[in-house]
Amino acid sequence: MDSEQSRSRRPGRRRGATSASEPAPGAASASYRHLHNPFEPLRVLSEDEVAQIHEAALSILENDGMRVLLPEARGKYAAAGAAVDESTEIVRLDRSLIEAALKTAPASIAMSAPNPERNVVIGGRNVAVVPVSGPPNASDLDRGRRPGTLRDLHELLKLAQSFDVIHMLGPSIEPQDVPPPFRHLESTLAQLTLSDKVPFVYSRGRPQVEDCFAMIRRAHGLSQEAFQGAVYTYTNINTNSPRQLDIPMAQGILDFAAAGQLLIITPFTLAGAMAPITVVGALALAHAEALAGITLAQLVRPGAPVVYGGFTSNVDMKSGSPAFGTPEYVKASFGTGQLARHIGLPWRSSNATASNIADGQAVYESQMSLWGALLGGCNLLVHGAGWLEGGLCASYEKFIIDVEMLQMFAEIFKPLITNAEEIGLDAIAQVPPGGHFFSTAHTMQRYRSAFYTPLVSDWRNYGQWQEDGALTVTQRAHRVWRATLERFAPPLKDAAVVEALTAFVERRKAEGGAAPVS
Amino acid sequence: MDSEQSRSRRPGRRRGATSASEPAPGAASASYRHLHNPFEPLRVLSEDEVAQIHEAALSILENDGMRVLLPEARGKYAAAGAAVDESTEIVRLDRSLIEAALKTAPASIAMSAPNPERNVVIGGRNVAVVPVSGPPNASDLDRGRRPGTLRDLHELLKLAQSFDVIHMLGPSIEPQDVPPPFRHLESTLAQLTLSDKVPFVYSRGRPQVEDCFAMIRRAHGLSQEAFQGAVYTYTNINTNSPRQLDIPMAQGILDFAAAGQLLIITPFTLAGAMAPITVVGALALAHAEALAGITLAQLVRPGAPVVYGGFTSNVDMKSGSPAFGTPEYVKASFGTGQLARHIGLPWRSSNATASNIADGQAVYESQMSLWGALLGGCNLLVHGAGWLEGGLCASYEKFIIDVEMLQMFAEIFKPLITNAEEIGLDAIAQVPPGGHFFSTAHTMQRYRSAFYTPLVSDWRNYGQWQEDGALTVTQRAHRVWRATLERFAPPLKDAAVVEALTAFVERRKAEGGAAPVS
Repeated sequence: MDSEQSRSRRPGRRRGATSASEPAPGAASASYRHLHNPFEPLRVLSEDEVAQIHEAALSILENDGMRVLLPEARGKYAAAGAAVDESTEIVRLDRSLIEAALKTAPASIAMSAPNPERNVVIGGRNVAVVPVSGPPNASDLDRGRRPGTLRDLHELLKLAQSFDVIHMLGPSIEPQDVPPPFRHLESTLAQLTLSDKVPFVYSRGRPQVEDCFAMIRRAHGLSQEAFQGAVYTYTNINTNSPRQLDIPMAQGILDFAAAGQLLIITPFTLAGAMAPITVVGALALAHAEALAGITLAQLVRPGAPVVYGGFTSNVDMKSGSPAFGTPEYVKASFGTGQLARHIGLPWRSSNATASNIADGQAVYESQMSLWGALLGGCNLLVHGAGWLEGGLCASYEKFIIDVEMLQMFAEIFKPLITNAEEIGLDAIAQVPPGGHFFSTAHTMQRYRSAFYTPLVSDWRNYGQWQEDGALTVTQRAHRVWRATLERFAPPLKDAAVVEALTAFVERRKAEGGAAPVS
Repeated sequence: MDSEQSRSRRPGRRRGATSASEPAPGAASASYRHLHNPFEPLRVLSEDEVAQIHEAALSILENDGMRVLLPEARGKYAAAGAAVDESTEIVRLDRSLIEAALKTAPASIAMSAPNPERNVVIGGRNVAVVPVSGPPNASDLDRGRRPGTLRDLHELLKLAQSFDVIHMLGPSIEPQDVPPPFRHLESTLAQLTLSDKVPFVYSRGRPQVEDCFAMIRRAHGLSQEAFQGAVYTYTNINTNSPRQLDIPMAQGILDFAAAGQLLIITPFTLAGAMAPITVVGALALAHAEALAGITLAQLVRPGAPVVYGGFTSNVDMKSGSPAFGTPEYVKASFGTGQLARHIGLPWRSSNATASNIADGQAVYESQMSLWGALLGGCNLLVHGAGWLEGGLCASYEKFIIDVEMLQMFAEIFKPLITNAEEIGLDAIAQVPPGGHFFSTAHTMQRYRSAFYTPLVSDWRNYGQWQEDGALTVTQRAHRVWRATLERFAPPLKDAAVVEALTAFVERRKAEGGAAPVS
């Protein structure tokens, strides 16, 4: 076993030949733009058990129902034949309604980005990644932890634009220096000017959504009708578990479905708190809530693009603290993937951690989440880069570390080529026992691109690493995001479009913007 | 998406109700003593491609052969019909020899520990874990990085004994304050007195191996004959890639096979350096070398217990630095698992990283290694806890962080129970929309054991975490290993046995010990 260290006659490491302190030139690789997951999804449930959980969800919707706070949404359900109790606002859904909805929901969704090279397909074996979305706080090693600002939002969007393994945008931070009625305007303007990837729109009520849709139409140069013919943006709908759909979320379903824009329906079910304490119980409740939301979308517009969102984790039963990337989280992920495939919809998962800093816990919980999502067959990974504190903070350093892990997965997804040429029996015959392969033709032909070049990993030996300041990966990630922002150049945009969008935002701000609906 | 943070109405986190600074009482759980991996192994190769790599390996052994430095081993090969060139020391093996050897090698191996509760089965869906093995250096936050000592060896053995998710012992550190001729004596004495798990013996030449076998026989109270009838210890054999088997390693194969003790045959093939630059080329070379070692063991004693060892990674082609837990490493792991199953042998993998400290890089590379091993179907995980610097350092803090990850895997392996009782439709019906499940009978019956209790993760919110010193997971791991050592009580041992072992060591030291063979 000592052989693994001392006998292996490691090749000498040339001084200064490489350093992780500068971002690798290959960090943005076009080959990461369309990820295809080659692995058969892992299963934690038998087919019978999947059917049993699906049945349980149908019985929850039939017997217990969902409380739906928006009268317009209750009206849609009632018109389709659901039993609506207006005094309790409870909507009970017959299984035939759900089954009909599942027949019209598409299995795969093509998203159109401002730059067609950034178009994304959600479904099948495709994997699309969205950065951290929604935290009120930001943190980095220069400025510490603070309330998120518009500057943070701009910087995080620039980071999201800079790495090809991030496929769509998200509301990476809540800019608390922007008044709430203006945030959607600033956020949409920033997404449409700093990036050419698919933008996100919050469902915080119809007035905001209408503003954002108008801006996206302008960016693409589309009529209202043309806009509704393809999918240009997306939102996330969280049910208010257990069994409740609030007003802005219900409005979001109605408005996005009507416009043919993508809805992710994501119950946030913490086992032991807002959901049963068992993983299978939490999955049954989440499945019921997701089915209720998916059905509403299909009632509004049959064929409306919807993604089955899963966010089941557990709490610490001693303190009530939510936990993420736990063993229960991983099993819930695999099970959620199975339920999504059972109903034939694309599945959204997350890269989550409860850690308060970008340390080893953040990494092991996040990577557990990532394997749970990716081996579970996830199609859309939200919070892909930068999430900390159970979603209460967006960390710049964590963003870079997550990108490193995502790029590693992108490389793992690339198939091995196995043929005589690649195996290289000639090279093996040429190298004498105990020799090395550095100078064989087989090596020389391949050495530039044979292996993944890391973004932030440092593989130098202890002495070299120490001489260079003994930086942790978090400190090196700090250098990488700074260098990335310094190098950033926004994608080319039509000046007239930028001017029109800016004028729109100015006008709407002058008019008072649009307050969020609650 | 803000719903995932602010709308979820997280349960309040009670102040001080939990803290990760003390080790969880459940850290040593008997349920971790026998791990069963329920997942179908992942594949990166088709069956045809596996067969093609196996064929390539057979052709390497037939045409190019292995250089075998030990005359006695060449003699064994020659007697079985191999073509041996004594001038070059090259041994060429016909495929019929290999095929015959694979017929006698057992598919599963039962290991007998000093305490029968610590017996281990290696093979099938079982997973056994060994701690970090072999580094010359140790590090922890109190004492920094330094050459390993006997005290470090004792402490690391105590840690290995303390966690049930570590199943067998390893030479966790090279005690550099002990003269080389005495190290095997001190190491074996320590393993047999501080622990009741299966001990490790280095293959550093016959004289040392004979001492260690004598001590293990004494510990178990066995005759030489009885000792050879079951498997009480194990060693690791690294071929000297490419295509070379040195003297102590060859002697180890002869001696362990003759005694019926377990051999792990592990080529250490770094793609681009001591192996072809392609993953499939490195796998073909590793497979050939493993087959040569396995065959030698079976020639010595048909049925000798052998594990197929895999350690294929890649180097940084700019600097020559070895890298671990890379995308190529993960794919090589999945492929190695497939090759092991192709020949019907248990498979050994590793938990590896090139990081110089127990930071996020150490964690993401290690966890990549762990998923590569465990989803690849690994039976024996070496370097399971504590490895840093590509094996040049054993870190106490990393040990604890790895144990946390291993325990998480042990929990992920536990099947979900899916039935009406577990789903809990009654509980779901009882809790009103927007309510919580804390006080339902379904929760109350299960809350004590529903979820994994972490060893070192801190799930408290940012304010509580900061008030408690804002410790990183590495700093918390430091507290955990210290508390574990403070609490440590060695397993009960027969005083006469301990006295006899101590007397043996004293006598052999007085006689000069046994120098390693090279």
